[in-house]
Amino acid sequence: MKNDHDARMQFAIELARRAGDLGLKYFRDLDSLTIESKGHQDLVSEADREVELFIRAAIAADYPQDGIVGEEHASVAGSTGYVWVIDPIDGTANFVRGIPAWCVVIACALHGETVVGVIHEPSTGETFHGRLGGGAFVDGRPIKTSASTSLEEGSVGTGFSNRADTENVAVLVRMLLAEGGVFFRNASGALMLAYVAAGRLLGYVEEHMNAWDCLAGMLLVEEAGGMVVKPDPKTVLQDGTLVISGGKGVFPKLRELCRGPFRL
Amino acid sequence: MKNDHDARMQFAIELARRAGDLGLKYFRDLDSLTIESKGHQDLVSEADREVELFIRAAIAADYPQDGIVGEEHASVAGSTGYVWVIDPIDGTANFVRGIPAWCVVIACALHGETVVGVIHEPSTGETFHGRLGGGAFVDGRPIKTSASTSLEEGSVGTGFSNRADTENVAVLVRMLLAEGGVFFRNASGALMLAYVAAGRLLGYVEEHMNAWDCLAGMLLVEEAGGMVVKPDPKTVLQDGTLVISGGKGVFPKLRELCRGPFRL
Repeated sequence: MKNDHDARMQFAIELARRAGDLGLKYFRDLDSLTIESKGHQDLVSEADREVELFIRAAIAADYPQDGIVGEEHASVAGSTGYVWVIDPIDGTANFVRGIPAWCVVIACALHGETVVGVIHEPSTGETFHGRLGGGAFVDGRPIKTSASTSLEEGSVGTGFSNRADTENVAVLVRMLLAEGGVFFRNASGALMLAYVAAGRLLGYVEEHMNAWDCLAGMLLVEEAGGMVVKPDPKTVLQDGTLVISGGKGVFPKLRELCRGPFRL
Repeated sequence: MKNDHDARMQFAIELARRAGDLGLKYFRDLDSLTIESKGHQDLVSEADREVELFIRAAIAADYPQDGIVGEEHASVAGSTGYVWVIDPIDGTANFVRGIPAWCVVIACALHGETVVGVIHEPSTGETFHGRLGGGAFVDGRPIKTSASTSLEEGSVGTGFSNRADTENVAVLVRMLLAEGGVFFRNASGALMLAYVAAGRLLGYVEEHMNAWDCLAGMLLVEEAGGMVVKPDPKTVLQDGTLVISGGKGVFPKLRELCRGPFRL
């Protein structure tokens, strides 16, 4: 059994790319279906399930003693302390409607702390990866969070949670705009977190995200020099977490901003 | 001199793709610069200017008597009644920060009415095109606007205008969420209009857009079976216009929704 983090990271990068290729096949099939046809949603559900099964099978082969938590299938308990946390298609609403902004997310946590995070966007071919203490990268090149100190210098990503009141998002948007800021929402939370890590967005905030949507991206942000509100390692895998993340220069402002609309 | 609409459409498709390749070269150069380095904004401005000059030169060669209106350079008066309306890089804020959602926009209007519209996104390779009375397409395949009749069935794109009060956008977002809707903002207005045409978004609304940002996309939406608030052909090229657009089933609701925040 391999158990060092670097091997798991390389494994996850390869796996995310292969899973992305599989997802892309479904995405293109969808595109060739008649628009609004019946069976559309079925194919998406099938894509989600099949890509997750593909990822699970690869993990079971190479790391059979590790645990697995994913969106579509039941959790697998492990014995090594390592748990793979996977979202086969983040941005499913985009996927189903043909918007190319969706990604494969693979994180690996050790005793609840994320040690490896990979986010791969098949439509552009970009792969973001990071390892605890090892930095963050896009397609092998190092990335850094934004050095901005003002919310006026870029955009802040946000999203919706099923568990949180959407009215809170409206309040957040109003407060952000009042500060001279701008919101961004491409409907893939993991991808927006990767963009924060790469300094493309100033930050990303969402009142609640599931572990498989946010753990990889939050590791990337920290490894790229940014800051996040730390999730509780005891509960995050099961319950998800609040997400406030950004470059060091804007993070305190973002956290302060979120005190209005979010339950912190 | 060629002057039929189909020839202009084919010409615009080819041109948008070549211009996109040129833009992509600058985009990749940006990526290889140190993040936050000086010279970043300069390279973006250069990309914007150079891609527009490239498009203008091609138009001047093939349609020397047509007029040209673009974002970066002075207007060229023509004698044929045809005016090319071009945005070399729509989504400049994305471009400068490395977010791949940006596009080349080429429209052609005859006496203020759009007859050809092309939107090309280099990062995904997708090309949307439409001709007045000739339908709308992505990569040659016909597209249709969403058949949804409820704002709860998808997302509505929105953006910011320098000319409009951002507070109005906050009000719009709140009202949309209150209706059970969801907002989407990938910061390229033209691309989001193309997504409306392809049924990927329910609609797109923005209080003010410049002609080069919206004319191509608005034609696409109409040719894909959707509806738009018609701009004034006498003033749109110079002054821009309000944009409310969507599938037929949601358009009346969107227009009603916009009566609150926007000056209609």
